[in-house]
Amino acid sequence: MTTPTKMAVVGAGSWGTTFAKVAADAAERNADDGTICLWARREAVAAEINDSHTNSQYLDKIRLSQRISATSDLREALSDANVVVLAVPAQTLRAQLHEIRDDIAPGAVVISLMKGLERGSDARMSEVIGDELGIEPAQIVVVSGPNLAMEIAREEPTASVVACADEEVATRIATLISAPYFRPYTNADVVGVEIGGIVKNVIALAVGICDGLGMGDNTKASVITRGLAETTRLAIALGGQLETMAGLAGLGDLVATCSSPLSRNRTAGRLLGENLSATEVGEAMTQTAEGMKSAHAVLDLARRNDVEMPIAEAVVGVLDGRLTIEGMARQLLGRDLKSETNISRESD
Amino acid sequence: MTTPTKMAVVGAGSWGTTFAKVAADAAERNADDGTICLWARREAVAAEINDSHTNSQYLDKIRLSQRISATSDLREALSDANVVVLAVPAQTLRAQLHEIRDDIAPGAVVISLMKGLERGSDARMSEVIGDELGIEPAQIVVVSGPNLAMEIAREEPTASVVACADEEVATRIATLISAPYFRPYTNADVVGVEIGGIVKNVIALAVGICDGLGMGDNTKASVITRGLAETTRLAIALGGQLETMAGLAGLGDLVATCSSPLSRNRTAGRLLGENLSATEVGEAMTQTAEGMKSAHAVLDLARRNDVEMPIAEAVVGVLDGRLTIEGMARQLLGRDLKSETNISRESD
Repeated sequence: MTTPTKMAVVGAGSWGTTFAKVAADAAERNADDGTICLWARREAVAAEINDSHTNSQYLDKIRLSQRISATSDLREALSDANVVVLAVPAQTLRAQLHEIRDDIAPGAVVISLMKGLERGSDARMSEVIGDELGIEPAQIVVVSGPNLAMEIAREEPTASVVACADEEVATRIATLISAPYFRPYTNADVVGVEIGGIVKNVIALAVGICDGLGMGDNTKASVITRGLAETTRLAIALGGQLETMAGLAGLGDLVATCSSPLSRNRTAGRLLGENLSATEVGEAMTQTAEGMKSAHAVLDLARRNDVEMPIAEAVVGVLDGRLTIEGMARQLLGRDLKSETNISRESD
Repeated sequence: MTTPTKMAVVGAGSWGTTFAKVAADAAERNADDGTICLWARREAVAAEINDSHTNSQYLDKIRLSQRISATSDLREALSDANVVVLAVPAQTLRAQLHEIRDDIAPGAVVISLMKGLERGSDARMSEVIGDELGIEPAQIVVVSGPNLAMEIAREEPTASVVACADEEVATRIATLISAPYFRPYTNADVVGVEIGGIVKNVIALAVGICDGLGMGDNTKASVITRGLAETTRLAIALGGQLETMAGLAGLGDLVATCSSPLSRNRTAGRLLGENLSATEVGEAMTQTAEGMKSAHAVLDLARRNDVEMPIAEAVVGVLDGRLTIEGMARQLLGRDLKSETNISRESD
């Protein structure tokens, strides 16, 4: 890129704001002229970012670089941006894109930070972006990995994956977000990277349920292992790669999410495991657990592709109130002896 | 097996005792005539097991089945046993086998519960067993998986892997240890199952070091992910299978060990991360961390097989006092941008 990067980040939640910070710190390190404009829905949030260089609701006292400006005017944020980063709720993406498609500069690279499937269409976020903006795969990038936003904001060392069908574009974006504490790896497998990020939220719900039931690390490690196996089956059926699922955006993201007390999905699972209904869990939590929204779409996608996903199936059963928590526990520890390599093929 | 199983368990530590409990509870469930004789080095431990049906030093107040008897006479324990379970320290196995080889009935199946490489020879435990007893692979079984002993003793649902070159033998043993709370899967890949159990202790040291340095779940998930990748490379170089490493004895055991506050290896790593020397850590801990003993042998095996294991290499550097904790942290988060699929091939 010879012209300086002008990045627009659409969404000033914890990940959007943290990503803006990463890009700003990377620009500092690369000593380039890049600037970042962060769009916040609420005027007050934009004002706080501009005046105090903080976003206290999401990132506490973390200080943001002066390279980051904020606005609540989406058109202003997008104006002349050659990199557009999308960090809005998965289920509202299509409507949002529909509104702004004419404001995005032709040729701009669009980065998705979102992890979810669109309900109804079961589309991945990169598919929604391609559909709505009518742009080529080489312009669409997905960033995913073991990336708990608050830890990155605190500058704890973190690795991530930058996926794009065009590896040159992936490398360019990786350079733009390579901060001293944030290390991106490139990958051409967009499908695998997205599926890893989506399904881990559903598996984290299952691990949370085990927590709520008072189960130990043996059980949870088994659910994580078998959860990654069913995620991998789905990814491969959709054209993803085994190696991606064994990497940072598959295994890495799953382990980070399932280990972290910061994970909303694991917390939601724990509440389900303590016998709250899905509605009660929704009411008890201030931020939504994406896994609760995506679980049905994941299972739907699996069924349409003839992939067995017993853990996702059990989670959906619990969410729908069709399966008791005790029934799910029984289902997770079935009875028949089997060869281990069959785990990946059979449901139980 | 038409004759009733007479199982001898050599070693009454936490895992040996718990395994005896699992086998006794499985016999109860299968309504067979199986008996278990547990050998304890110390007379007092054997007496407590016989009199109070507890092994309070290792398993607190957990009650053991009446099917379990104990003795401090090893020859007595082995007499007529058709299944011999070995749960002694990895580094003393060869000497112990040398002493008892004539007391083991010909045709007995020998089960290894041990996770370690013999220093000097770099031999896996099943290799030491084969060497010293002169028995066929079809008589040697390895049990491994996400199996924190105390959780199993508390009857928390646990899955495990029973590996044997002869799948019929694996199935027979799996049936013998299938308790209501313990679910074994069979696998013919003895090498992969053993390597998973050995190297995870070294990776757990690295994760513990991250803990000691105050690093978060993003970093630890990356170390686990890349740790499994290097474990897999070593296993494959030795003839193991990729699928095994993605299963319970690879990923599952690694995740359980790295998540658990009960893990000695993770605890030892944390102390190293707090800048204690290897000697100081050894003195601070009542039970040894197997990873500290096996790490050199793992690296040695890797080098002899031309396998790059950067995390194991860093751990050995720290153990030897050649690498500072800060140097290791820098090494774990290198600087160059790379394609993710190269992670598995390159050192950094």
